[in-house]
Amino acid sequence: MDVDAYMAERIPRIDAEIEARLAVHVGLPESLRGAMRHLVFPGGKRLRPLFSLAAAESVGGRAETAMPLAVAVELVHTYSLIHDDLPCMDDDDMRRGRPTVHVAYDEATAVLAGDALLTEAFAVLADPAAVAGADARIFAIGRLAEAAGASGLVGGQIDDLHFESGGGPSAKTDFERLASIHARKTAALFEAAIVGGAALAGANEAERESLGAFGRDVGIAFQIADDLLDADREEAASILRIQGIEDARLGAEGLLETALERIDGFCERAEPLRELARFAVRRRR
Amino acid sequence: MDVDAYMAERIPRIDAEIEARLAVHVGLPESLRGAMRHLVFPGGKRLRPLFSLAAAESVGGRAETAMPLAVAVELVHTYSLIHDDLPCMDDDDMRRGRPTVHVAYDEATAVLAGDALLTEAFAVLADPAAVAGADARIFAIGRLAEAAGASGLVGGQIDDLHFESGGGPSAKTDFERLASIHARKTAALFEAAIVGGAALAGANEAERESLGAFGRDVGIAFQIADDLLDADREEAASILRIQGIEDARLGAEGLLETALERIDGFCERAEPLRELARFAVRRRR
Repeated sequence: MDVDAYMAERIPRIDAEIEARLAVHVGLPESLRGAMRHLVFPGGKRLRPLFSLAAAESVGGRAETAMPLAVAVELVHTYSLIHDDLPCMDDDDMRRGRPTVHVAYDEATAVLAGDALLTEAFAVLADPAAVAGADARIFAIGRLAEAAGASGLVGGQIDDLHFESGGGPSAKTDFERLASIHARKTAALFEAAIVGGAALAGANEAERESLGAFGRDVGIAFQIADDLLDADREEAASILRIQGIEDARLGAEGLLETALERIDGFCERAEPLRELARFAVRRRR
Repeated sequence: MDVDAYMAERIPRIDAEIEARLAVHVGLPESLRGAMRHLVFPGGKRLRPLFSLAAAESVGGRAETAMPLAVAVELVHTYSLIHDDLPCMDDDDMRRGRPTVHVAYDEATAVLAGDALLTEAFAVLADPAAVAGADARIFAIGRLAEAAGASGLVGGQIDDLHFESGGGPSAKTDFERLASIHARKTAALFEAAIVGGAALAGANEAERESLGAFGRDVGIAFQIADDLLDADREEAASILRIQGIEDARLGAEGLLETALERIDGFCERAEPLRELARFAVRRRR
């Protein structure tokens, strides 16, 4: 299958859904409205939402069933970037070739826009208009909250900040600590996007199990690939500094293979999911 | 009934549930763990969770059914205080007689602890251990997200910041703008706590409607009462500056009466809810 065509067809639908969701709030203060949209449009590759839709299809459901989660994971991803960029964290002025939200607006507005996007992610999944049943939505909300919370994104970011500033005494090696940061900052949200998307489409327990493991592996492999693409630039907490470029490339490829084996038993309908995984890990841009 | 005894009996149960919830995260970075707990223990009056429990009882349910929401609203309330206190917002060093989270820890940790508490609120409601059915939990999650999000807490805080800094041109009077800020920063979460608590206990449509309106009125009245208690101190965006102390007291009392009328048809079981409302508005501490 042609993954580029698949993405080109899906991304505008995802964008339209995000657009519709943000438009729910009428009469917002103009600064908040603008700050919430600033990093969402134009966005990145929309990989996480694409994975949600493909996961729903992989278990025989319609992509549309997973759309609320697709929107939600992109909003959570965007919120985490806005907060990570803040002066008190990574202090980044530019993101995707544009000024970061706190530069384009101000710090207070950036904190609050992030807060609003995070909250909105849960609002989407609770919207009565959602197609999926309440039990499946509760499951997706739970996994998303787990991925975003203290044991996921937030805890990973705290450790990342400490790691970059030299960190305290630790029994773990640098490699173990970085792997743990990647697992929480990247892989957890990939896993939630995939297992939750499948659950919304009616995945059974065994399918959820396989897809959860698939998501974790792909998430880590994606993060390594991302570090490889950044290898030209000086990256503070890059796994490459420790493991070396060739090792990292082999590691990512190995994780991808393991991930694909985990969904070996899935039929033809899982092809988009497999192709997205290959794209996420092997892309050159 | 003795509202003090009611609160004294309930608060330790609420605290124990919050404690148990935060303990779910094992192996957190010590700074994150401490910062998440800093403003939660010892907390404030736990009014919002108490309202959730009393709302469940008011429709004939057990208080326990609403416990996940009780925990959730207190976590959302705490997160909003932590972020409001940040240097880029209200820049407060002290809260409830102790250093604020960003003073006791640092700014990055305060932002992230707030993020984690907000996320945790949704995790509690999605926990499979919850007693209430999935539909009721989805309803409660939706109302909580609405109260906390761009059209609620976050939007109110943005307008509050602009108001305090003089604001831009506006067709609204100062009084209208302040009322709108109070509605979003305070009343929306009261409403979500009450209507959601009742929904978890099986409230029907009509009961939800009445309790929602009750919650909004009590929330506004509570905020006015809070401003009155602060009247000694210099408060920047106090409604009193505009309306005068005596007017404000009458306004709060009038809202309380309206609120109580809205649940006139509720039987004896709504007494704790009524007494909590009287306490929230008439308290002298």
